[in-house]
Amino acid sequence: MARIDNSVDAPAVATDPGMAVQEWLDALSRALSARDIEACSALFHPDAFWRDLVAFSWTIVTLDGREAIAAMLRKTLAHVQPSRWVMDGAATETGGTVEAWVRFDTAAGRGRGILRLRDGRAWTLFTALQELRGFEEPAGDRRPRGVVHAALRGRRTWAETRAAEAATLGISIQPYCLIVGGGQGGIGLAARLKRLEVPTLVIDRLERPGDAWRRRYKTLCLHDPVWYDHLPYLPFPDHWPVFTPKDKMGDWLEMYVQVMELAYWSQTECLGASHDPDADGGAGRWTVQVRHQGVLRTLHPTQLVLATGMSGLPQTPRFPGAEDFQGVQLHSSAFTDGASWRGKRCVVIGSNNSAHDICVNLWENEAHVTMVQRSPTMVARSETLQELGWGRLFSEQALRNGFTTERADLMLASTPYRLVTEAQKLVWQAAAERDADFYAQLRQAGFQLHFGEDGSGLTLLYLRRGSGYYIDVGGSALIIHGEVSLCSGVQVARLTAHAVVLSDGRELPADLVVYATGYGSMEGWAARCLSPAIAARVGKVWGLGSDTVQDPGPWQGELRNMWKPTAQPGLWFHGGNLQQSRSYSLYLALQIKARMEGLATPVFNG
Amino acid sequence: MARIDNSVDAPAVATDPGMAVQEWLDALSRALSARDIEACSALFHPDAFWRDLVAFSWTIVTLDGREAIAAMLRKTLAHVQPSRWVMDGAATETGGTVEAWVRFDTAAGRGRGILRLRDGRAWTLFTALQELRGFEEPAGDRRPRGVVHAALRGRRTWAETRAAEAATLGISIQPYCLIVGGGQGGIGLAARLKRLEVPTLVIDRLERPGDAWRRRYKTLCLHDPVWYDHLPYLPFPDHWPVFTPKDKMGDWLEMYVQVMELAYWSQTECLGASHDPDADGGAGRWTVQVRHQGVLRTLHPTQLVLATGMSGLPQTPRFPGAEDFQGVQLHSSAFTDGASWRGKRCVVIGSNNSAHDICVNLWENEAHVTMVQRSPTMVARSETLQELGWGRLFSEQALRNGFTTERADLMLASTPYRLVTEAQKLVWQAAAERDADFYAQLRQAGFQLHFGEDGSGLTLLYLRRGSGYYIDVGGSALIIHGEVSLCSGVQVARLTAHAVVLSDGRELPADLVVYATGYGSMEGWAARCLSPAIAARVGKVWGLGSDTVQDPGPWQGELRNMWKPTAQPGLWFHGGNLQQSRSYSLYLALQIKARMEGLATPVFNG
Repeated sequence: MARIDNSVDAPAVATDPGMAVQEWLDALSRALSARDIEACSALFHPDAFWRDLVAFSWTIVTLDGREAIAAMLRKTLAHVQPSRWVMDGAATETGGTVEAWVRFDTAAGRGRGILRLRDGRAWTLFTALQELRGFEEPAGDRRPRGVVHAALRGRRTWAETRAAEAATLGISIQPYCLIVGGGQGGIGLAARLKRLEVPTLVIDRLERPGDAWRRRYKTLCLHDPVWYDHLPYLPFPDHWPVFTPKDKMGDWLEMYVQVMELAYWSQTECLGASHDPDADGGAGRWTVQVRHQGVLRTLHPTQLVLATGMSGLPQTPRFPGAEDFQGVQLHSSAFTDGASWRGKRCVVIGSNNSAHDICVNLWENEAHVTMVQRSPTMVARSETLQELGWGRLFSEQALRNGFTTERADLMLASTPYRLVTEAQKLVWQAAAERDADFYAQLRQAGFQLHFGEDGSGLTLLYLRRGSGYYIDVGGSALIIHGEVSLCSGVQVARLTAHAVVLSDGRELPADLVVYATGYGSMEGWAARCLSPAIAARVGKVWGLGSDTVQDPGPWQGELRNMWKPTAQPGLWFHGGNLQQSRSYSLYLALQIKARMEGLATPVFNG
Repeated sequence: MARIDNSVDAPAVATDPGMAVQEWLDALSRALSARDIEACSALFHPDAFWRDLVAFSWTIVTLDGREAIAAMLRKTLAHVQPSRWVMDGAATETGGTVEAWVRFDTAAGRGRGILRLRDGRAWTLFTALQELRGFEEPAGDRRPRGVVHAALRGRRTWAETRAAEAATLGISIQPYCLIVGGGQGGIGLAARLKRLEVPTLVIDRLERPGDAWRRRYKTLCLHDPVWYDHLPYLPFPDHWPVFTPKDKMGDWLEMYVQVMELAYWSQTECLGASHDPDADGGAGRWTVQVRHQGVLRTLHPTQLVLATGMSGLPQTPRFPGAEDFQGVQLHSSAFTDGASWRGKRCVVIGSNNSAHDICVNLWENEAHVTMVQRSPTMVARSETLQELGWGRLFSEQALRNGFTTERADLMLASTPYRLVTEAQKLVWQAAAERDADFYAQLRQAGFQLHFGEDGSGLTLLYLRRGSGYYIDVGGSALIIHGEVSLCSGVQVARLTAHAVVLSDGRELPADLVVYATGYGSMEGWAARCLSPAIAARVGKVWGLGSDTVQDPGPWQGELRNMWKPTAQPGLWFHGGNLQQSRSYSLYLALQIKARMEGLATPVFNG
């Protein structure tokens, strides 16, 4: 392909950050218009990253290096037809890196992005589809009228329309999209699909929306702060507490289902599913067996989303002698409150969030509590996490700095996971220094600490395996002061009638054993709710391929199978914490809407 | 009092609007600091207005003219101690009037205002208390943590605290404030009091929050647009329809009660009340008899708010022969749907909003409908009202122009009612021209139109008497095209077994008679819920004293008895449309909170 402008090869380095960005965008625009891949890739550093959420790739992908970028453009440019790149707000410069928000159009819709330049070349580019042209959400100027101002015979009121939908969707009319799991993830996605007019049904096995929260141990509060936790469209009011109590969260989710007018079947289990890829002219169709309030029903959605939580099934180890134990054994997910364990001997196996919270709850109820720590744990003080971690994007200060929830989500997504890993190492070095006394006391109490295998800390543990850490909200002080006994660096050998026996031979008399031993993986849900064959086809879900514990390589650059096309056509995985659920539900919703409308969605597969 | 600065007598006219405002504020600050009333009043035009919401007067008052302003300052300046007047944002100039937002402090709290200058002197000043110092709402940086990050024996969870409050408030613990009426007005106020930590109980006679909306005729949608209708703190999401259907509104209110954690007794009637002004060391105390889900209870709040709606009791005329009528007679408030009146003869007596809406509903159900118009009616096309009326402050365009709901409320409140009246005459002249064809057609159909006695139109009819108009959402076309028969300029003489007989002798055979004849006044609620003596003490509620039909003079300058101290200590009236309820609930909440905290609240009484 002929060059039309040699200047893109070696862009001049402008000194004004805004001018530098403008020059880069102009050069990119010229090169893209000319379909000149070489000129495009020359605008990037050799080790540049381009993270794309659906805008170019119709998937979620990070391209690692100039060659990968060129390869992606070669495969996508002709149909994506990017255009109208403009800077959105002022560019800034920090330590030689120029950063700017950008907007752009594609053939299918409109995107936003964040560009970072070093010496005039792109170091990172982030592009994210925001809306589909012709299928914009009906908000603001586009909101519905709510009523036709005329006398019209045969009109249906809002209440009649709602009642008719409830009587037909999933019964006589099939939903285009079925979401299995009605927690914050499922309903946030359903709200987005509702606004995009995708007929969607949410099913959940519990009695009421929010029950997954209500059923947890009574002292549970969110470990993430309020600014991080908003659901789409309906933010918490500004007096909402920083850390939402679990029942309050449950009520909020129940309200959300109603206010967002979601079609939601409670007390509904997904029993199995199969997929016919050739049905409906190649769109594919699921056959999903569910039990809906006791009645067996078959659903035929085109798209199926598993939103059963990034935690899979409760994972309870089977220790020798467990069947002989005369006390009570519970998985942490079944523990609700320590009130009935006053004065009793309780052994909590595990040392992550739930283990600590349950120890605190038992201690508050004057039980005798022992924690069994089987492997090193990352501990982060909540205050430190807020100040060094979340605070820049999710806090009152962040809001004052212009980081609305929407902008914070985009900014957070704009950094490729490789760079996140490096940045987090610095964060946790700083945290270790800042909280050196705290960590020393914990170590002195025998607690086995780590900051992840490579020192990248809590966020990466979460992204790699969703476990291995405790956000300290009071438990560490009990360990430090010996209020909760600690047995660390040991395994459980076996149970006897009245005790837990450790690998070092110690015997812990016990009335209660709580297995705070975590959850299986998301693919476990696929095997159980859909079929083992489908789960096998999809493979591992979650994790970055970091080649660390529970996250085998090779490097993926993105969370496996999350919010993007999987090896099983028509099957999607959705979940994560509240921030991820909110942020990524947009991109999943856009992918589903595009398919419903029959738009071309050629998925870039590397 | 000695002058300290002669320059305030004749301020120089600055040409830059911002500079003019700054000079004026500086002069005001100097004069106020010096307690120089003469110098202060010289800063105002002789016919200037000062509207104050609680900041200076501890009531709601408009001072009409320089003398009145001086008199108010003489009585209030020493204890209000206003200070720190600053311009808030840029000043603007339109047609010789300079307008600017201002902020200021008082001894009790912080205020905002809007100043309008002409030729360097104040033409209107608006001052509104926004928060009490030391009792700021716990929002943003002040939001609660939600949890104490520590192990604490005896801690109460959120759910336990909520349950304890529900078990005690109104039973073993008396609310400081009792709100009678749990519609949008009552609950919006309760939410504000909740944030201000005023123990408040809302009682409502219906089964569920929102039922007052749900029970209305099925096609009802709000006549005011969404931007006007937000409740405090929790705005509708941005896809909310422009005109909210009544059941959707009902659900929203029910959700609001729950999310805002209001103490709300449904199915509770207020049977009577008496007040002891000397109780509790002079704070006064009410004795209120209620029937709470069948159980008689006595409540002892210090403050009592009637929020039973600005519409009072349904008002049904007693026509001769009504007892002989063999068909069905209903007040409009009891009409729900026309489905059972297909092919039947229906006479609707009245010509305002409900009358028209019910005619439309009956026509849509293929009934034969006749409207009896007994007096001229103001009709406004909904679109015109939005464009010429609400739109400047309440629309998507207004939001783009920086009019957040809070700013729009303040701006709307900033114009004294005398000037509102004059401005509205111009609006309705323009509307009459714009919709000349529409009005001609209505007149041709025999409909008796007016624009208020002085041409000031719909808004003033609402403020003066809360009736006398129709916002056309489809009914006028039925009248114009004869689909609904119209008998206008007549009275109802009597009813017979099967007909309505008009004053001109015409006989209208009828299976159904709907009395869309409006509601009594708010003081009717006081007589019924509290006692006739209390109602008599308070006198008329609502209306401006405009000396027009149903609003006798003398001129009040404000709505009588609304949101401000009344002749009955401890009794307050709250209500109005959604915008008024939202906006004025702030000022009522601040007055109640100040009293609870024992702040001095010397009420300026002219």
